[in-house]
Amino acid sequence: MALNPQYDAIGKGFVQQYYTLFDDLAQRPNLANMYNVETSFMTFEGVQLQGAVKIMEKLNSLTFQKITRLVTSVDSQPMFDGGVLINVLGRLQTDEDQPHAYFQTFVLKPIGNSFYVEHDMFRLALHDV
Amino acid sequence: MALNPQYDAIGKGFVQQYYTLFDDLAQRPNLANMYNVETSFMTFEGVQLQGAVKIMEKLNSLTFQKITRLVTSVDSQPMFDGGVLINVLGRLQTDEDQPHAYFQTFVLKPIGNSFYVEHDMFRLALHDV
Repeated sequence: MALNPQYDAIGKGFVQQYYTLFDDLAQRPNLANMYNVETSFMTFEGVQLQGAVKIMEKLNSLTFQKITRLVTSVDSQPMFDGGVLINVLGRLQTDEDQPHAYFQTFVLKPIGNSFYVEHDMFRLALHDV
Repeated sequence: MALNPQYDAIGKGFVQQYYTLFDDLAQRPNLANMYNVETSFMTFEGVQLQGAVKIMEKLNSLTFQKITRLVTSVDSQPMFDGGVLINVLGRLQTDEDQPHAYFQTFVLKPIGNSFYVEHDMFRLALHDV
């Protein structure tokens, strides 16, 4: 499969769509449709999970009520299987906590005319030094 | 090709090897061996480059003499082509500048018994807010 020339628009569009669902408690369960039952990996603050069920258990267990997010940059690259690698740098504030920088990486895998999230890594930029 | 069960050790070993070369001005040109002449992508602070020659031009154009680096976390996931997705969170200080948080993503592509860097994305955690 060839490189997808639309990778940049796909990356930016995906990030907007993903966070629109993520940041709305009522819509967050719909993120389940973005992951594969078996072949999706998530690493959330160093904890690795595989499959849509475990990934959604993790996302649904997050206890904050409100999230304020600023996306600083979205970098995308085309992949040789037709997928897209996406890196997000942003800042987020949950409830009344301090805002933190974070970064999140997605690998989108093509399936028909759409994509699912094959890889997802999330880290707050916290340093224990 | 199957998932590589050694992905975590591969990720950590690669990161150590890569930064050992990167952080030593005399050894940095050897990073050329880690990229493919055509099929390697780099996005460096939002600037996209393709191929080992352009990537090395960029890396060799960096003007700082000294780099002090702390790697905070290395997250790795196995990929379905036998590759490894790696995310690094760290802090670095160049010459006498302020230390900055950064993150870097690598996708290692298997080639024989080894790997090359197919995707490389680097961002300092700077926010224009």
